[in-house]
Amino acid sequence: MVHDITFEAIINAAGILSGIAHHTPVMTCQQLDAAASASVFLKCEQFQRTGSFKFRGAYHAVRQILSSGHSRPVAAISSGNHGQGLALAAKLLGLSAHVIVPTPASALKQVAIRSYGAQLHLAENRALADATMRRLTEHDQAIPIHAFNDPHVIAGQGTIMLELFAQVPTLDIVLAPIGGGGLLSGLCLAAHHLNPSLRLYGCEPQGAADAWESLRINRIIPMPTPQTMADGLRTSLGSRTLPILRQHLTDVLLVDEEEIVSAMRFIYERMKLVIEPSSAVALAPLLRRDSVLRGKRVGVVITGGNVDLEGLWRSLPPGAAPS
Amino acid sequence: MVHDITFEAIINAAGILSGIAHHTPVMTCQQLDAAASASVFLKCEQFQRTGSFKFRGAYHAVRQILSSGHSRPVAAISSGNHGQGLALAAKLLGLSAHVIVPTPASALKQVAIRSYGAQLHLAENRALADATMRRLTEHDQAIPIHAFNDPHVIAGQGTIMLELFAQVPTLDIVLAPIGGGGLLSGLCLAAHHLNPSLRLYGCEPQGAADAWESLRINRIIPMPTPQTMADGLRTSLGSRTLPILRQHLTDVLLVDEEEIVSAMRFIYERMKLVIEPSSAVALAPLLRRDSVLRGKRVGVVITGGNVDLEGLWRSLPPGAAPS
Repeated sequence: MVHDITFEAIINAAGILSGIAHHTPVMTCQQLDAAASASVFLKCEQFQRTGSFKFRGAYHAVRQILSSGHSRPVAAISSGNHGQGLALAAKLLGLSAHVIVPTPASALKQVAIRSYGAQLHLAENRALADATMRRLTEHDQAIPIHAFNDPHVIAGQGTIMLELFAQVPTLDIVLAPIGGGGLLSGLCLAAHHLNPSLRLYGCEPQGAADAWESLRINRIIPMPTPQTMADGLRTSLGSRTLPILRQHLTDVLLVDEEEIVSAMRFIYERMKLVIEPSSAVALAPLLRRDSVLRGKRVGVVITGGNVDLEGLWRSLPPGAAPS
Repeated sequence: MVHDITFEAIINAAGILSGIAHHTPVMTCQQLDAAASASVFLKCEQFQRTGSFKFRGAYHAVRQILSSGHSRPVAAISSGNHGQGLALAAKLLGLSAHVIVPTPASALKQVAIRSYGAQLHLAENRALADATMRRLTEHDQAIPIHAFNDPHVIAGQGTIMLELFAQVPTLDIVLAPIGGGGLLSGLCLAAHHLNPSLRLYGCEPQGAADAWESLRINRIIPMPTPQTMADGLRTSLGSRTLPILRQHLTDVLLVDEEEIVSAMRFIYERMKLVIEPSSAVALAPLLRRDSVLRGKRVGVVITGGNVDLEGLWRSLPPGAAPS
């Protein structure tokens, strides 16, 4: 299962994405380096089209469907970034797209998904979302594109590592948040071929530590009631991503909600960048100067910037919000 | 008076700032271009050291003081960005700095000024601030560095135009916010030598339209009670900046507070960039598709990102804040 996503598949994905996806910048900050006691390089996927890295995998997967001769609609269950990525990918490639959004869902993200021309289906819970997906695949011949458990999606996300390696060839470590594990699977597979001594860590909220536990016991642990503001990381690993990460991931670093808020605040105040809570999860271990990171050259994948900042501040407990 | 700031002075300032100030990126966005019906290029000075362009002028001015053989303390009255710029400039050059901050003042900015090692003096009103400045100049031999009415400060800000011209040589128009006029004076003087057909517009809040009025009647209009969230633009023009802008500025474009909020929201949601209300003032005419801007290649100086977003949203009238 692991080896059906080759390095060549990632290189091929990079070719497909060339001129379509943005080649995102790497940003640095002396204050961040000082706070982390490390040299930190942010791969800024919040500047990617649709505001997150998810566009890469979604576009690559839709393009592969077209190449195989289909012109059927595509469909995904997603509350956010994958849905936006898929909607734009389908629009650019001339396919229709359905995005099934479990409620409650951010109004901002619903508007964005619609603005790319996709048809939005609200579903009150996961079972209803699955039922909608069955209806779309059976009656409308829609092709489902999973947010992370799809080899073409994983290969698309792996192109981030190709770019980061070219931009900063001398990294010791790469950090990225871990939700379903599609991003880190792509990063690991690319890194394994580019520089096998590069260490990759997944970063996960303590309130949704299912990946940490799943990797420990080598079995997917479901996450019925995740407790974290990092809405992109509430999902569990998939059948494809678990074995890849078991083989290649160095470890999982857990962070608490207060550390997530502090990291968001640091980056927004000092670097003037809007990042999502999920991205802040991967910065938090640096700001507490984790022993495995100190003194190292550390790349961090900033996954996206699709956040309703005002709503987030309001929803935080008193004292947790930046003052 | 106008011609005491030569193009050579700006070139010299660029040499002094080289390797010290950041060469800030130019960013673009397809959604912004579509919304503006123009090709828009943001010169991102929110990524400048201390979070605003003010570091350029402050560093250049302090460096000139050192070159003239003085090692006395420097001092400025500033509630924000100039104070931070001066504090860091003095620290880097080994001088002590005093920053006089009229209250009420943002706690965030006070912390930043102190973090750069400057001595902070709170003053309850402008008269008390002036009295503190007199005391510092008389008893401590401090050298005042005006935030905008200083030729070295103006030359320092002019270096932004040198960089922007090199990054995007084919601009038709440059937009920048207008407060005291130091930034636009520097931009105008540089642009006049680089490309005399380039048109520069100052952008100003309707609630603080003193520059518009001052330029119309060629006399500095004081602004006793400015009504705008763009705190950096509440000041009046100076004796140096008025004649430069009278000679070179094409016009002033006025925007209302709702347009400022909309522009901030657009940039933070679509481009994932934290910008100050003062910077949003220069974007607002684009988003309402001002006739002089449509179809043009327009550079916009994003002046800074030092904003307490949470506090700003809370202070807005209901309905004005992004939802």
